[in-house]
Amino acid sequence: MELHDLIDGLPDGAVVTDPDLLASYRQDWARDPDAGTPLAVVRATGTDDVAATLRWAHERRIPVVPRGAGSGLSGGATAVDGGLVLSTERMRAIAIDPVTRTAVVQPGLLNAEVKRAVAEHGLWYPPDPSSFEICSIGGNAATNAGGLCCVKYGVTTDYVLGMEVVLADGTVLRLGGPRLKDSAGLSLTKLFVGSEGTLGIITELTLRLLPAQPPQSTVVATFASLSAAVDAILAITGELRPSMLEFMDSVSINAVEDELRMGLDREAAALLVARSDAPGEFARREAEIMVAACEKAGAAEVFHTEDPEEGEAFTAARRFAIPAVQKLGTLLLEDVGVPLPRLGDLVTGVAAIAERNDVMVSVIAHAGDGNTHPLIVHDPDDAAMTERAHRAFGEIMDLAIALGGTITGEHGVGRLKKAWLPDQLGADVMALTHRIKDALDPNGILNPGAIL
Amino acid sequence: MELHDLIDGLPDGAVVTDPDLLASYRQDWARDPDAGTPLAVVRATGTDDVAATLRWAHERRIPVVPRGAGSGLSGGATAVDGGLVLSTERMRAIAIDPVTRTAVVQPGLLNAEVKRAVAEHGLWYPPDPSSFEICSIGGNAATNAGGLCCVKYGVTTDYVLGMEVVLADGTVLRLGGPRLKDSAGLSLTKLFVGSEGTLGIITELTLRLLPAQPPQSTVVATFASLSAAVDAILAITGELRPSMLEFMDSVSINAVEDELRMGLDREAAALLVARSDAPGEFARREAEIMVAACEKAGAAEVFHTEDPEEGEAFTAARRFAIPAVQKLGTLLLEDVGVPLPRLGDLVTGVAAIAERNDVMVSVIAHAGDGNTHPLIVHDPDDAAMTERAHRAFGEIMDLAIALGGTITGEHGVGRLKKAWLPDQLGADVMALTHRIKDALDPNGILNPGAIL
Repeated sequence: MELHDLIDGLPDGAVVTDPDLLASYRQDWARDPDAGTPLAVVRATGTDDVAATLRWAHERRIPVVPRGAGSGLSGGATAVDGGLVLSTERMRAIAIDPVTRTAVVQPGLLNAEVKRAVAEHGLWYPPDPSSFEICSIGGNAATNAGGLCCVKYGVTTDYVLGMEVVLADGTVLRLGGPRLKDSAGLSLTKLFVGSEGTLGIITELTLRLLPAQPPQSTVVATFASLSAAVDAILAITGELRPSMLEFMDSVSINAVEDELRMGLDREAAALLVARSDAPGEFARREAEIMVAACEKAGAAEVFHTEDPEEGEAFTAARRFAIPAVQKLGTLLLEDVGVPLPRLGDLVTGVAAIAERNDVMVSVIAHAGDGNTHPLIVHDPDDAAMTERAHRAFGEIMDLAIALGGTITGEHGVGRLKKAWLPDQLGADVMALTHRIKDALDPNGILNPGAIL
Repeated sequence: MELHDLIDGLPDGAVVTDPDLLASYRQDWARDPDAGTPLAVVRATGTDDVAATLRWAHERRIPVVPRGAGSGLSGGATAVDGGLVLSTERMRAIAIDPVTRTAVVQPGLLNAEVKRAVAEHGLWYPPDPSSFEICSIGGNAATNAGGLCCVKYGVTTDYVLGMEVVLADGTVLRLGGPRLKDSAGLSLTKLFVGSEGTLGIITELTLRLLPAQPPQSTVVATFASLSAAVDAILAITGELRPSMLEFMDSVSINAVEDELRMGLDREAAALLVARSDAPGEFARREAEIMVAACEKAGAAEVFHTEDPEEGEAFTAARRFAIPAVQKLGTLLLEDVGVPLPRLGDLVTGVAAIAERNDVMVSVIAHAGDGNTHPLIVHDPDDAAMTERAHRAFGEIMDLAIALGGTITGEHGVGRLKKAWLPDQLGADVMALTHRIKDALDPNGILNPGAIL
């Protein structure tokens, strides 16, 4: 093999071939059992390494799977047999410009590291996946990641003003820049955001920042029925724009309470965590409107706090739902979204799918924007249950599509969900997607098997 | 000619061939003297008409220039000899969903009509080009239009969640939808926004809306020097996010005062109009911060009003600057943008270009986001002056590129600016642009000569 050409062209230690180490790069958090074994892992130290790697791979038609922190949930970074994994974990520079309120970051920084670095300048990078402490900013851009604040502040693409990206053949491009307005040429920056490494590898991002978020008021409400909780969600979003509006069902409430012992109501069918970051006393006023909406919808209990730390504790509890439910079994993690008026239909439909397939499904949701995470609990050693779990996984996507929704709100399609993508987009949009993919990556080396 | 095939396939009166009427579709507001004479104008009544027209044109390789309201300033809708002009002016439906805060609109509605329709539901569509009373929402999407509020609220692409678009061969696609989060497949919606009709013709848009904008506080300040005004701009944006931050120079102040007689200071070198829409008394507090910033920068006079109508009068005066300066002569209208710290360099550089070329250039600007409109005044009957004006037009774009900026912040490249696009983007980005164009429009019928 000509791997020596690659090794010689890159810094010492950039190319990993040790089998034990390679094994740790085979899967992301989707834990795809069919993951391949890569030829090598390239841990790039900069754009030049990425370009050299792609030139080498392009000539030889060797697949390249880009990888950030490996926290993806859709198998977008699952390794391919005989291919390379290109890891950006060592590309960690950041430069912050408070005057233009922008940050230029390399893709390997974690989302939380970006947030902390800009906070030192009194600035805020809003997108906040629940995994923000462990996911990379490059992976966020590749999947157009969302989070909890998106109901008010939008998703990753709304904060990407420019980038450096390396095309399949190793060409390095600069797109956009620190300008809020730029109508010069096609919106290529936006095309690469969310392309999951299938069109190019992002080596630098220019991010738009906001002033620090004001302190938030927090409302926590429990409900005896799912439908009452959905009524409260629609009432809240109809009156104002919460800075967060999160939903947990009975299974996740109990799973979190088992771990954190914070006094959550174990009898509740649903719990909402709603926040307002309106300036000054307007946060309290908005919280009071949200309290009233919950009470009118028939909430069992409503709690309201102005203490940011107390509010953060409930937010952390909601973020902890996935690891907590994971204690009950292995999870198939869904990410379906629907237009908000269909949220009730989605939640009740998921319950019916769980019952029909005899599997436990816990639903947590970024309720304010209709993006839900049904967590399908199963025992992988029980083949029959695993089969039922996978059937439920597909049926939930079918349901979301039928409700005019999406199979993925923020995790991406990766390899896990691509079989359902044509059902959502239709044959003509898939054909257009292929035309763009073929135009940008004629040899098909970039993340083959993801999305398409 | 096979025009009868087209006429027969479309509703009565949809195809215009009357020479007098055709003449009115040859140019947009760029008034390109080299505009061609179209074979016919199709005034589509719906998506089916657009699809039928493109199928007909695609088979015969006949150019199709899409046209909204014809208010474009870069010649994006300049007619091509022997081609079709496809006007969307008759496609004017709108459906508003207050629950998801979205509107589904056809492209022929004016921006102002969209604003008014959603305002009846207590909602707000933010993007606000100065031409909002006469520009179409389809044209806004085609150029990724901006406006005055973009400094806080972003540009058109930030509000387009989905669309229906007809490809060159007549295929009708649906992309995205009323969901804030959607990571399913490539970000094709965003690719079509800003593509100036070169990749497809948008026949429907799903727009994200916000709750009605709160009443704004307004600060008006005058300055004896440009540099003091630029200092004030940087001081204001460094402290908060104004909902508007507009700049007028001496020429435009006097031109507006000549027309409106509202008592503007004719001696001032620069005038700023800054607004805050923070909730309740926070608007006043932010206005006070802006007043202090202007005073500290050495403002000659600072005026502050809480009266929305009075504030709107100054905003209207700023919007009136282009027609007012137009009384002084024919305009070449620039749209260059720079990262905010380079705004002073741009303004002084433009003055030097004006002097060197012996032409009058008035600068107005969406100052808060670094997007300026140098207005080059000339007499088209004076050939030498016109040549100097065009030289200045190009030199201003060269300057913006040298300062790390863009040749167009919000008007688009069209035909007027395409010669400068490679200097901004570079050969590799141009090559990628061509690859995408060729993949989507292999016969090159969609708005040939625009952008590329």
